[in-house]
Amino acid sequence: MSGFTPEPADATCIATIRTLAADVVGKANSGHPGAPMGMAPVAHVLFTRFFNANPKSSKWFNRDRFVLSNGLANAHQRHACALQYILLHLLGYKLSMDDLKAFRQLDSLTPGHPEAHHTDGIEVTTGPLGQGFANGVGLAMAQAHLAAVYNRDHYDLINNYTYVFTGDGCLMEGVASEAASIAGHLKLGNLIVIYDDNHISIDGDTAVAFTENVEQRFLSYGWQVLHVHDGDSDLAGIYDAIATARLEKSKPTIIQLRTTIGYGSKQQGTHGVHGSPLKADDIQSLKSKFGFPPGQTFYVPEVTYGTYRAAALRGEHLESAWTALLAQYGKAYPNEHAELTRRIAGKFPGGWEKALPVYKPTDAAQASRKLSEIVLTAITPALPDLMGGSADLTGSNLTKVKGTVDFQHPSTGFGSYAGTYIRYGVREHGMGAIANGLSAYGGIVPFVATFMNFVSYAAGAVRLSALSKHQVIWVATHDSIGLGEDGPTHQPVETAVHLRAIPNLDFWRPADGNETSASYLVALQSTETPSVLSLSRQNLPNLEGSTIERAARGGYVLHEVEGEALTIVSSGSEVSIALEAASKLKAEGTKVRIVSLPCWSVFDRQDEQYRLSVLRSGAPILSLEALTTTGWQKYSHEQYGLPAWGASGPYQKVYEKFGITGTNIATVSKKVIAFYKQKGGEVVSPLIKAL
Amino acid sequence: MSGFTPEPADATCIATIRTLAADVVGKANSGHPGAPMGMAPVAHVLFTRFFNANPKSSKWFNRDRFVLSNGLANAHQRHACALQYILLHLLGYKLSMDDLKAFRQLDSLTPGHPEAHHTDGIEVTTGPLGQGFANGVGLAMAQAHLAAVYNRDHYDLINNYTYVFTGDGCLMEGVASEAASIAGHLKLGNLIVIYDDNHISIDGDTAVAFTENVEQRFLSYGWQVLHVHDGDSDLAGIYDAIATARLEKSKPTIIQLRTTIGYGSKQQGTHGVHGSPLKADDIQSLKSKFGFPPGQTFYVPEVTYGTYRAAALRGEHLESAWTALLAQYGKAYPNEHAELTRRIAGKFPGGWEKALPVYKPTDAAQASRKLSEIVLTAITPALPDLMGGSADLTGSNLTKVKGTVDFQHPSTGFGSYAGTYIRYGVREHGMGAIANGLSAYGGIVPFVATFMNFVSYAAGAVRLSALSKHQVIWVATHDSIGLGEDGPTHQPVETAVHLRAIPNLDFWRPADGNETSASYLVALQSTETPSVLSLSRQNLPNLEGSTIERAARGGYVLHEVEGEALTIVSSGSEVSIALEAASKLKAEGTKVRIVSLPCWSVFDRQDEQYRLSVLRSGAPILSLEALTTTGWQKYSHEQYGLPAWGASGPYQKVYEKFGITGTNIATVSKKVIAFYKQKGGEVVSPLIKAL
Repeated sequence: MSGFTPEPADATCIATIRTLAADVVGKANSGHPGAPMGMAPVAHVLFTRFFNANPKSSKWFNRDRFVLSNGLANAHQRHACALQYILLHLLGYKLSMDDLKAFRQLDSLTPGHPEAHHTDGIEVTTGPLGQGFANGVGLAMAQAHLAAVYNRDHYDLINNYTYVFTGDGCLMEGVASEAASIAGHLKLGNLIVIYDDNHISIDGDTAVAFTENVEQRFLSYGWQVLHVHDGDSDLAGIYDAIATARLEKSKPTIIQLRTTIGYGSKQQGTHGVHGSPLKADDIQSLKSKFGFPPGQTFYVPEVTYGTYRAAALRGEHLESAWTALLAQYGKAYPNEHAELTRRIAGKFPGGWEKALPVYKPTDAAQASRKLSEIVLTAITPALPDLMGGSADLTGSNLTKVKGTVDFQHPSTGFGSYAGTYIRYGVREHGMGAIANGLSAYGGIVPFVATFMNFVSYAAGAVRLSALSKHQVIWVATHDSIGLGEDGPTHQPVETAVHLRAIPNLDFWRPADGNETSASYLVALQSTETPSVLSLSRQNLPNLEGSTIERAARGGYVLHEVEGEALTIVSSGSEVSIALEAASKLKAEGTKVRIVSLPCWSVFDRQDEQYRLSVLRSGAPILSLEALTTTGWQKYSHEQYGLPAWGASGPYQKVYEKFGITGTNIATVSKKVIAFYKQKGGEVVSPLIKAL
Repeated sequence: MSGFTPEPADATCIATIRTLAADVVGKANSGHPGAPMGMAPVAHVLFTRFFNANPKSSKWFNRDRFVLSNGLANAHQRHACALQYILLHLLGYKLSMDDLKAFRQLDSLTPGHPEAHHTDGIEVTTGPLGQGFANGVGLAMAQAHLAAVYNRDHYDLINNYTYVFTGDGCLMEGVASEAASIAGHLKLGNLIVIYDDNHISIDGDTAVAFTENVEQRFLSYGWQVLHVHDGDSDLAGIYDAIATARLEKSKPTIIQLRTTIGYGSKQQGTHGVHGSPLKADDIQSLKSKFGFPPGQTFYVPEVTYGTYRAAALRGEHLESAWTALLAQYGKAYPNEHAELTRRIAGKFPGGWEKALPVYKPTDAAQASRKLSEIVLTAITPALPDLMGGSADLTGSNLTKVKGTVDFQHPSTGFGSYAGTYIRYGVREHGMGAIANGLSAYGGIVPFVATFMNFVSYAAGAVRLSALSKHQVIWVATHDSIGLGEDGPTHQPVETAVHLRAIPNLDFWRPADGNETSASYLVALQSTETPSVLSLSRQNLPNLEGSTIERAARGGYVLHEVEGEALTIVSSGSEVSIALEAASKLKAEGTKVRIVSLPCWSVFDRQDEQYRLSVLRSGAPILSLEALTTTGWQKYSHEQYGLPAWGASGPYQKVYEKFGITGTNIATVSKKVIAFYKQKGGEVVSPLIKAL
């Protein structure tokens, strides 16, 4: 027998969502409201019967999280986000009817895909397929972790569910496969995915490309799989599936919900509707069919508003009760309470940065991946907020701090949910998207790790970190030909400029110990910006002139001379090679100044006077990096780097092959100096421009 | 009863591979020979009993293809490629014992990961995990397609198998999941994957992150799953599994082969061996155990060479018989023979390029994605070699030429293996890696399609196209804010410069019809270079001054004036906006010259005199593109582009928001002109440099 109690208003509410979707999408005059119309029943049951959130206080920490993974690029479901906007409006989030009418219009609160940090009530930015699914896994991991750390008997403070709506498109994407496999391994009972199984993709019936057995695949990952055969109208079936999913505490659940795309329209479930908006007469007939005034647009019956207000009120009461419980917890567990509330507020403990290691030039040379490990080891005791791991390269990335416990289901014997070290497996894209979910949850600063070259596998997630302002830190080791024998398949050439070109992403390539500490300092202070730390496999000397403070400005004069013949600007492992060249040239009476530029974007944010003092006029500037030179033209007159791919061999020999040695760079420098001498005229800083 | 006939030499051969692996890896002095030692038995059975290839003629078209997908970045299997090098040597490919001794040394034929186009007998470049698996799917699709097109009764000319060795690492990667799902959908009976199930990954036991049921997952994709429980020594079991796999004609097969990492060494199957080379005494004891002289290194008993010579000889005979069959086929089917041999030779039919559409300025404005469709429609009849599809965006990418048939298993009713249009599903990364396999097979020029923004999902495959010299053409539509409503999640900003920075990749952003034709011309002529064609969603006018010949140089003067005050250099959809600005400025008496630069890398390959005539000294050069400005500093003094992300809205309004309109660019131009006038002195071309 079903646990579902039908209400007279249910049909009206669902019809409201369907007709409103047709109007919202129709006014935007592009696409098709098929998906929101098909998903209306499950959305209604979920939000009126189960979903715990307070629209008046959309950041309440223990709210259930909702992710519309089919946000969506898939043209048939392109306007699934209309569904989310409609629900937010009905529930009373800060989204008015006028906002709905401005769907997909410039500078509206209802852009073409849902964007976190833009629209009240949107947890994560979706649209690029598969991302939302993996974000959901991250959100569920965050809940499981914080619950394990802070919940106590009688204080079940953190117990929310994460609900994800997904479609065929997401399930075809590798990023979702990776995340699904991890979620099963981690036995995330708080994760409930509702799969809109409508058998339609842009290219037509999913039978043309997607014939795998989805149920069997998710069973293979260790999920619970439930079915609702009539997602168009079986509200009791929907209710029972969600209720059953909530009872399963040691497996994530996917509910396979058979729906009809464009349900209620004349062309429901057909190919004919693809991409084309509903015709006016179809919208009218749809409204008549549901007993709505056919001529009226954007119509919401009062009973619908009333029903959703009641759901919102339930959320308000839940938050009140939770706030009271949190206050009691403060008395029983004052330390945990202080830490939890600090983390909820997104503040770090005062003075944490004092733990950052500081180096002198006499300290031993070390790989910057090792320097990164030293930083993590130093700051982890002060920052329980750090939670991270590697895509099966822990021993190479050096990301596991001694004594940290694995984040694992306790039944595995490998750790517990209270653990902070995540074994991502060889799943870079899933890892990046999961980290976005961890960050979106709050209270956690995620770091992730792989070889620099394989950050590219996760490019789809990285750009969304930046767009959505997720503070995710990438520990990207083996960052150049300096990795040696693994050769060109593993030697990034183009990766740095790719990441440097992403807005709101700080790409750091520190040259030594102090610069590595600086990169962590700024990355941890930048609460709305992801950072990629590009680190060497090979040892790097600690440099005279580097300090955390100076490097934290993104670029600075490492080695100053007056009346220089040349400035060399460099980053990471090549800075010490630039210094070596300068030293050789000094012996010949040629003065060369060295600028270290570990982070372009941070340097760009410094005031003009400072920037011009670093990359000053008067002498040519030569850039040096063991990567492509693309992009360095902004900061230098001449560029030296790799002409194409790297090579396999011991790293010193690979550096020699490409002329990135003190001796050759001295020769190159002389060529540059002679060229500008012959050219004559003042050499003006490349930063002095009209625009 | 097993079909396996044991030979006395089998044990010696396998011991040779194991000890040679220990020596080869030991001499390189890094890593561990665990994987080659574990995979020696299956490699021996495969290559001596089944594998059809002629080492003396490594490009014989109907050879079986072998892919070592665990090439490998995974440190435990890092030296799996030693196995492949050893086999190539034993079989008599152009790889000497000295080459084996130079494993992972600079400029050797035995680099750290196997590279196609570098080492005789290597089909595809592997190492980055998951790629080889997906390449194997592409190789198998190519075989299925060409067989369907060219085989006739009694002329089974194309019937080879594709064998892939894979490990846990590959199977965790999303790219392999995507490819596995497609392979099952396509029922590729000629694909046999051997999974080295050794339960070890870098982070330790696979149980820490990889607990899914691999058998069940592959069954869900529609694969046949076979097991060999003792892959260390059950040669008959290995033989029977491969034989069974070969008999299944309508499903790909994965053989789950349980092996012991480092089999034969003192530390076999343990965690202790991770990453560390075998100690000298362990290597010696290993050799003693196998009855080999413990003190001798790089020892190959004559019986081993003899056995592998016999296998090679079998391949020689097979090729001879095949060549004779091909000659008979030429008499029976002269047209098919001519076409097949032309395709095997990698030559296009003469004059195909005459089919490329040519435009006049009076021709109607069209989106360059539409212009791309017109090109494909025009050239497809002349080029049966073209085989491609889209990641479920056919209707948006406009890649399906009318009348082309889907590449599908005939049982689906959607097409046949003779079809050339591939329904990739929403699987961009798998698609890119599969296309690399299609290209590697030969006789096929693959194209693939998605939105420009989602080429990033496939970045791992794209860089390998370029490194491995695969001619793959990406049709990348919706390439800027010009896509409008879908908003910043779908509007590439950083993607162009990422792709422009990849060596041996031509990134085209054509401005009109003639430039679109030019981009296809060069892309199709560049047989060892992948190309990405970045195309607009919105209509673009046909420009006065554009021709195929001029655009095929990568950059040219579109609009010439003498004594210009400014040159604007632009690409794609912004070129016509630059012209509009020039026209406005002309009305005010200011002369502005326009350069169209659709492809940086092709322009860079032109002679210096030409390049300097296009981007000449004498006046400032301003770049204009609706993307990040990163990288344009190489070609211009000043840059105008997007400051950060795009926005959701009708595209004209989005262009206005960011000031990319004729009116605003005219204003910007005046600012630039004034700045350089005030600065004084000669304005020198940005191409004139010391280096």
